[in-house]
Amino acid sequence: MELFTGRGYEQTTVAEIAARARLTERTFFRYFADKREVLFSGSAMLQELLVNTVAAAPESAAPIDAVAAAVEAAGALLQERRDYAKQRQDVIAANPELQERELIKMATLAAAIAGALCDRGVLEPAASLTAEAGIAVFKVAFGIWLKGPDQADLPQIMRDSLNDLQAVVTEPAVTHRK
Amino acid sequence: MELFTGRGYEQTTVAEIAARARLTERTFFRYFADKREVLFSGSAMLQELLVNTVAAAPESAAPIDAVAAAVEAAGALLQERRDYAKQRQDVIAANPELQERELIKMATLAAAIAGALCDRGVLEPAASLTAEAGIAVFKVAFGIWLKGPDQADLPQIMRDSLNDLQAVVTEPAVTHRK
Repeated sequence: MELFTGRGYEQTTVAEIAARARLTERTFFRYFADKREVLFSGSAMLQELLVNTVAAAPESAAPIDAVAAAVEAAGALLQERRDYAKQRQDVIAANPELQERELIKMATLAAAIAGALCDRGVLEPAASLTAEAGIAVFKVAFGIWLKGPDQADLPQIMRDSLNDLQAVVTEPAVTHRK
Repeated sequence: MELFTGRGYEQTTVAEIAARARLTERTFFRYFADKREVLFSGSAMLQELLVNTVAAAPESAAPIDAVAAAVEAAGALLQERRDYAKQRQDVIAANPELQERELIKMATLAAAIAGALCDRGVLEPAASLTAEAGIAVFKVAFGIWLKGPDQADLPQIMRDSLNDLQAVVTEPAVTHRK
């Protein structure tokens, strides 16, 4: 990550990444398909956490509450790596190809959450809509957190953003206007 | 579009598309950067319609109502070209590169709607959350419409999906379970 932020993502070679990590290039390619994957190796863990948290919600929980628990858990995980998350976001923001990959990741996470809700017996289109709402909250809250002070609490921002979403989709305009 | 669905997107050359449209390749490239753009040339019009509809909503309208009017207007536009929309979706579904481009398009539309809401005086994060909610409704409703019967009414499905979204983010689980 230091190489990407210091030299730029495009200028950094796999040889340099491997050397910094004290790996041969051959070993590097055993772990990562390409250098892009270095930035997305956490996606599978994030997806697993989201899906498992949805699955583990009490049977009586509303779909949106199961999704809220999942995005809060994801928030707690990301919170532990704020510096990494911030540096990673800067690298991605500077590279359109990585932005595309990030959009694909978010779409994949939304589909995984929708699948986990279906497994709980939630019907379509409620499952997809709830999952998309969760990912919208995740994206917006993550953006607020990255721009906020170091001690900003991501799980709390996730909860606040969900409350804001509930307010904006159901309430009249007045409270949201200048 | 017939070439893409008949021969496959990847197998279709610009020369063939140009010949079908009775254009020289040179003229083709005056209108489109590449063959991918043939499938995304409508994006700018869709974005303009969404932004203009948000801007034209009565001053007293809640942000979500302005966004609802925008996605319904988009629904009416797409409704007029159901066969094209369906064929286009089949081509995109068969090609990961086009799926990425479609995700970028949706993210761009969400950002444009958020910008139009900010211009109406809606503050962040309400603007982004409302825009993301609108795009979630758009995506889910579009998917339902494409799978539905020929006479399915997209603007109505957009309205129903927004009602469903409002229900899932605020209501308890029971009504959405099997």
